[in-house]
Amino acid sequence: MAGITELAEGAVAEWYNDVVQRAQLADYSPVRGCMVIRPYAYSVWESIQRWLDDRLKETGHQNAYFPVFIPESFIQREKEHVEGFAPQLAVVTHGGGEELAEPLVVRPTSETIIYDAYARWVQSYRDLPLLINQWANVVRWEIRTRLFLRTMEFLWQEGHTAHATADEAVTEARLILALYVKLIEEQLAIPVLQGRKSPKERFAGARETYTVESLMRDGRALQMGTSHDLGQNFARAFEVWFLDRDGERRQPWSTSWAVTTRLIGALVLAHGDSKGLLLPPRVAPTQVVIVPIYRSDGQRQAVLARAGELAAELRRAGVRAQVDGREEVTPGFKFNDWEMRGVPLRLELGPRDLAAAQVVAASRDTAEKQPLPMAELPVRIPQLLETVQAALFQRALEFRAHHTYTAATLADLAALDEQPGFYRMNWCGGGACEDRLGEYKATIRCIPLDEEEARPTGNCAVCGAAGENSVWVAKAY
Amino acid sequence: MAGITELAEGAVAEWYNDVVQRAQLADYSPVRGCMVIRPYAYSVWESIQRWLDDRLKETGHQNAYFPVFIPESFIQREKEHVEGFAPQLAVVTHGGGEELAEPLVVRPTSETIIYDAYARWVQSYRDLPLLINQWANVVRWEIRTRLFLRTMEFLWQEGHTAHATADEAVTEARLILALYVKLIEEQLAIPVLQGRKSPKERFAGARETYTVESLMRDGRALQMGTSHDLGQNFARAFEVWFLDRDGERRQPWSTSWAVTTRLIGALVLAHGDSKGLLLPPRVAPTQVVIVPIYRSDGQRQAVLARAGELAAELRRAGVRAQVDGREEVTPGFKFNDWEMRGVPLRLELGPRDLAAAQVVAASRDTAEKQPLPMAELPVRIPQLLETVQAALFQRALEFRAHHTYTAATLADLAALDEQPGFYRMNWCGGGACEDRLGEYKATIRCIPLDEEEARPTGNCAVCGAAGENSVWVAKAY
Repeated sequence: MAGITELAEGAVAEWYNDVVQRAQLADYSPVRGCMVIRPYAYSVWESIQRWLDDRLKETGHQNAYFPVFIPESFIQREKEHVEGFAPQLAVVTHGGGEELAEPLVVRPTSETIIYDAYARWVQSYRDLPLLINQWANVVRWEIRTRLFLRTMEFLWQEGHTAHATADEAVTEARLILALYVKLIEEQLAIPVLQGRKSPKERFAGARETYTVESLMRDGRALQMGTSHDLGQNFARAFEVWFLDRDGERRQPWSTSWAVTTRLIGALVLAHGDSKGLLLPPRVAPTQVVIVPIYRSDGQRQAVLARAGELAAELRRAGVRAQVDGREEVTPGFKFNDWEMRGVPLRLELGPRDLAAAQVVAASRDTAEKQPLPMAELPVRIPQLLETVQAALFQRALEFRAHHTYTAATLADLAALDEQPGFYRMNWCGGGACEDRLGEYKATIRCIPLDEEEARPTGNCAVCGAAGENSVWVAKAY
Repeated sequence: MAGITELAEGAVAEWYNDVVQRAQLADYSPVRGCMVIRPYAYSVWESIQRWLDDRLKETGHQNAYFPVFIPESFIQREKEHVEGFAPQLAVVTHGGGEELAEPLVVRPTSETIIYDAYARWVQSYRDLPLLINQWANVVRWEIRTRLFLRTMEFLWQEGHTAHATADEAVTEARLILALYVKLIEEQLAIPVLQGRKSPKERFAGARETYTVESLMRDGRALQMGTSHDLGQNFARAFEVWFLDRDGERRQPWSTSWAVTTRLIGALVLAHGDSKGLLLPPRVAPTQVVIVPIYRSDGQRQAVLARAGELAAELRRAGVRAQVDGREEVTPGFKFNDWEMRGVPLRLELGPRDLAAAQVVAASRDTAEKQPLPMAELPVRIPQLLETVQAALFQRALEFRAHHTYTAATLADLAALDEQPGFYRMNWCGGGACEDRLGEYKATIRCIPLDEEEARPTGNCAVCGAAGENSVWVAKAY
């Protein structure tokens, strides 16, 4: 397995927290379960935002902003929704020094407050489809939290669309899922499995939840993003009606979908190693760091000057490059420091390189070094970055292939401890059989979207009845 | 006064709410004082964000994200800060179904939670300056709210910087003020007065508050943005210390600064007229709307096809152009509709224009029409948009000049009702005299930054003692 190794389950939690903090991705907050997203991680988030926001606008979506406070009574309106979210609410009871007549909930998700507005905005078929997204913070009261992966407050985008027909809503939910796949595979270099959630794992209030699931380096699955076909559930709860083309009053069909700052945690867990973080070039805040090497003061000036010029040339070529000009630390310290922070390429520049008009390029993923002529950097470095991007994806794909198993019987899941990963399992579709996966702390991650892949190859691994689907099972974050 | 007229004070509130809602900028929310920012206004906000965020990054600032919840005890730490914000807090007392041991405050501003982190992050002079900004929502419990201008929840950017010396902090606060001036004058086409706040009007916890103030079309002033020199107040309250270059332990000097979604309200009030909204081209989501005019079906197809081509050509030239292809409404309805929504340029295209290879361009600000050869549009339209941008600023500048007066005595402020605007007034610097402006519902908007402009021309208009400054007085939002 090229360059990527599995992390022992017990050690991962500690390693993860250590990397997140040493790489200055996040810091704990005085409020339990909340976190500070530091500039280095926020910059990764901005890169995710920019890519996704551009694609959403290209596909006709607009951004808006809905209030952070939701009247408590709103959450009650959709029956399944309230069951799903009631235990996780943060509640404002006092404002301006007085007790409120009706407590306000800090949004755990915005369907309810948004459908209240859609009831006013949607009157005619001409108002549809309504394709709105918002970038916002949300709060869910969590007991066990982990930086990025599960925090009480997190950042996300939440899309909320309304359509004239059920088919259009399904098409939208699938379109967004496809965007998420591109985002995660092409930008974050993390391969995904696409599928539908089992009824038990669906979003509270959804008719169907589509999901993308990835494998982390400890063999556990992480849900990367979800896209929900909400049917007419929220339109009904909030009495959204439109006059259709044929003069009939109908209720729209809707979707909602989200990816969150959890994706930053996924980057750590999917690519990181014993040296620390490893960022895919397309989302790395710094793609190339130039480390100057010198002994004398004269060398120092010459090397630093050339390093500055090279960084400027690279930036003109669209590369996010910087020089580490710190004087208080050695080159060796800098090598380790930037490796720990996951910068994909390091360029070393010393007096001999200067004389030879070259730099020595070191890849963070393979640790291989190669000399590169200075004159070729503006062409070679972007190529090299794309090579690293592709290699990271390939490596993660191979890692997943090596951690994919079959569970012919429920007892086969006992192997999850020693051989964590994705297990293909035939399932009858029954909730009772699904519940039994809990004996091994496993869950159905998804029913594959691909029909071929979802076709059962035999009877249910749990009860032995006819198989309805082949599903992906794993221990998950 | 070219094209811009004053709006009668009483009628303005109604006109404003009407424009904000009809132009689909915002909608009321079921939670009193909160609002929904609709896509059209959010797009203006994105344009403001993009411009300012680029400038902040160019000047070395980084974005981060701090928690929305602040322990109640944190707010208490800085004496003036708590006095200023305590009456405005929204308080979370319950989470996950249980009462919290310590209530959490929904951030009204983030100094306290941020300085708690800075105390960990700032250890050495090498960690300074620390230049961090965040784009976030904040909540202040307001009694009287108005869409955009004063809402319980609003969106803003808040910058928080820490520096090794007092001078550096002042330089930073002034640098940001200069960026705000550029944003508001060059992008929003609204002239500003720059100055310092009187001690009474300072931010709670600041040593000096710099402000930019603009005149709205009803003659009232609006505070557009502020930049605070916080001295060492928050560093002291949160025990932030660094080891300086000379080996001494010192406390950093800091700043904070913000502009908010209030700026969208300012656009309405500074440029709007009886037809509705008027957006400066640089921030208008749609800069040019093409309205096709036709009678027969054959005409319709030819005109619509050409309109689509022209819009595509304009978009390639960097113009945000769209065709209004609605069939259910007349061209006249469309003219009014887009005028109401403030689109700066309308292009009319009918069969005769098609034959003459021209369009008729109508400016929203002057209502003037002129024929333009189609072939010249990719060059002429961007020029015309810049002309409109400059004209709007010029018009607002003239409006302000016509609404600038002098108050030689306190009683002169009685004219504020009939002649609202900015009043220059000599002031002794005393709080008692400042308080008396309240008799006329006026406040000191700022002490001009420009020394010449701030020099008193005589004795205090209120008490007759020696003047310390010439200040700007107005009724304000």
